[in-house]
Amino acid sequence: MFLKDFRDIFGRRLIYAKINDMFSKRVDGIDSSFIRDILKLTKSRDIISFAGGLPDPELFPTEEFAHAAQTILSNRQSAKETLQYGPSPGYKPLLEIISKSYDKKDNLKIDPNLIIITNGSQQALDLIAKIFINEGDGVLIENPTYLAAIQSLSFFKPKFYPVDTESDGPTISSLPEAVGIKMFYTIPNFQNPSGVTWSNSKRQAIADYAQREDLILIEDDPYGEIRFAGERQKPLKTFYEKTILLGSFSKILAPGLRLGWMIAPDREIYEKLLLAKQAADLHTSQFTQMIAAEFYKHFDAQGHIDKIAESYKSRKETMQEAIGEQLPDLMLSNPEGGMFLWASFPDAVDTQELLEFAVKEGVAFVPGVAFSCQKGGLKNSARLNFTNADHDQIIEGVKRLKKAYEKYKNQ
Amino acid sequence: MFLKDFRDIFGRRLIYAKINDMFSKRVDGIDSSFIRDILKLTKSRDIISFAGGLPDPELFPTEEFAHAAQTILSNRQSAKETLQYGPSPGYKPLLEIISKSYDKKDNLKIDPNLIIITNGSQQALDLIAKIFINEGDGVLIENPTYLAAIQSLSFFKPKFYPVDTESDGPTISSLPEAVGIKMFYTIPNFQNPSGVTWSNSKRQAIADYAQREDLILIEDDPYGEIRFAGERQKPLKTFYEKTILLGSFSKILAPGLRLGWMIAPDREIYEKLLLAKQAADLHTSQFTQMIAAEFYKHFDAQGHIDKIAESYKSRKETMQEAIGEQLPDLMLSNPEGGMFLWASFPDAVDTQELLEFAVKEGVAFVPGVAFSCQKGGLKNSARLNFTNADHDQIIEGVKRLKKAYEKYKNQ
Repeated sequence: MFLKDFRDIFGRRLIYAKINDMFSKRVDGIDSSFIRDILKLTKSRDIISFAGGLPDPELFPTEEFAHAAQTILSNRQSAKETLQYGPSPGYKPLLEIISKSYDKKDNLKIDPNLIIITNGSQQALDLIAKIFINEGDGVLIENPTYLAAIQSLSFFKPKFYPVDTESDGPTISSLPEAVGIKMFYTIPNFQNPSGVTWSNSKRQAIADYAQREDLILIEDDPYGEIRFAGERQKPLKTFYEKTILLGSFSKILAPGLRLGWMIAPDREIYEKLLLAKQAADLHTSQFTQMIAAEFYKHFDAQGHIDKIAESYKSRKETMQEAIGEQLPDLMLSNPEGGMFLWASFPDAVDTQELLEFAVKEGVAFVPGVAFSCQKGGLKNSARLNFTNADHDQIIEGVKRLKKAYEKYKNQ
Repeated sequence: MFLKDFRDIFGRRLIYAKINDMFSKRVDGIDSSFIRDILKLTKSRDIISFAGGLPDPELFPTEEFAHAAQTILSNRQSAKETLQYGPSPGYKPLLEIISKSYDKKDNLKIDPNLIIITNGSQQALDLIAKIFINEGDGVLIENPTYLAAIQSLSFFKPKFYPVDTESDGPTISSLPEAVGIKMFYTIPNFQNPSGVTWSNSKRQAIADYAQREDLILIEDDPYGEIRFAGERQKPLKTFYEKTILLGSFSKILAPGLRLGWMIAPDREIYEKLLLAKQAADLHTSQFTQMIAAEFYKHFDAQGHIDKIAESYKSRKETMQEAIGEQLPDLMLSNPEGGMFLWASFPDAVDTQELLEFAVKEGVAFVPGVAFSCQKGGLKNSARLNFTNADHDQIIEGVKRLKKAYEKYKNQ
């Protein structure tokens, strides 16, 4: 019953909480229909979208997946296994593939029995929040950060503390005393939206801080393997034990598989996360897990990832060049990987208003306010995705953005 | 930080809640390792398992799925669609297939825009609890009921009120005055574990009660289409508008797809459920959704379901006959569909102890206590699954159960 009022044993009037109170004030603040409208824009054929966070579907390994699906379903034993209820942590060979890949990339030993497969890393955030967050618990977040991820945590009503970010990671002097704070949600590689990658010294400093304050670090790393330049940084997890490391196949294979993973720091946290996973949906589809495992076993996964990185690198450069020519007013990030440029217009510009002009010209982006922890913050910024448009579209899209910007200034 | 204690502004000592307090006392009461141990038993080759709730993998339409997977992945456009991020409510043609099937089965008109695809119906429970349950809110449940489903709700710390059940549904006189109660979680068809199907008059009576007390009804219907005998009953939803109806492809296609659905009663609840779904995992795999849709479009889905029902019916009869011969002490349910028999041993028998003898003889089942809302309740009962063993195994398994029972009595 909603909003039904009734009286307690002393005759005092009690009122039921309205459903809306379930959601954090921050989620209320971001009009969810605003974000949904943006996503709708990306579907219109006339619009060149720099808005979404979609990988390029031309790079999906569809033939390899078709081959994998046949292999799995044409063998009677594996067909039965893939279509039956499966183990909650995930398909064992896939857990081993994930473990081995950290060994290879980072010389980092991961016990496969501490890995849980999730439906993308989005689900990991939901499960983590579920087992850790009591209402009012403090959660540190980078500012700006990806608020769709934060939305998962918001359902459990934590108190968010934004941490300012500079070009090599969090501003250490802006870290609060951690009384009442339980965790720090971070994206240390090619951060969404800023593109920032944390330096080794920042990683060490945050690890020291977390150790001192007994915090849990959440290391969300969906883009780490899509690096164009510079050296791969060691995972935050190697600096601090109590880190929950999240990964995803969405950007390196395909988001439609809905496959991510989380690595628990120890057995106790693992057991709780596993209980939460069981309660949430028993387990992730074995079929998509087995397809991913087949891909890693029989095809050149590293070659595929290199191909993606190469393709995204050249599109990033095309976008940077086009903006340099067409929109010299803009300050642009220069990320070493990932999927986004972060653009700052002159202070007076309101990118939410600019977006309306842009859509009329046939181009879309996400205004900075969507990533700000402060209402109305980052209003002159924009996130530009370069992975879901080809070179010609990027050049044409930037031209349209220029037109929109001219009209906005002259309105 | 866990269990870190610190002081509030008045210097009073505050202690952080231990993680375990996140879980309801009921979940603590059921040793989760106990249930997991049972599931492990089902995997040993030497044990005939009546324990799990697994459908027969021989009946999975693997060839049809292989064909569907090829169709989807060999077409460039559908391959890109299926592997990209997709809409949170689900794959539209699948929503329409679900809507049409209610029209055909029940002459019930369902707006496809009120359906959300979930990862099995387990996820629906998690999302429903998330948007409705505040700590301490009352939730009615049937007694006995399927506690693994209840575990989803338990994470949000409701107060459970068990409702006694008789052969045609809930005992109306046992319904409490609904002050502080928000919803009633029900399985009206071939209930798990009791096998009970609610009569029309019970459906009407519960609808009247829900109307009067302004409750939400949760109608969990994973088995409804697997009927062996009698007439299909109208969904509870047709009796009462504010019903959230849950369905699943796990029992009629394959659990490994991880596909279920929930139907919201109205736009307002739909929007909240959709926000919760987005926050939980963005959307369910489009690939498995498209496979299910292809199956319904190009193959004889009703014929397939009829084949499953026919097969399960004859196994149920085999189990009933074998128990009638070997274990005349047992009182058995006679469900009109579903996957389970509910067996009551003489009062003095403790089926949790009996299970230890049974496993030694090479047969497993789930003791009644696992479904009881009262600690130690239903201790002389057992749930027997008949869908994951063939006829010979069922006969042999019942023989082993008889041996175990003899040894238990003579210990």
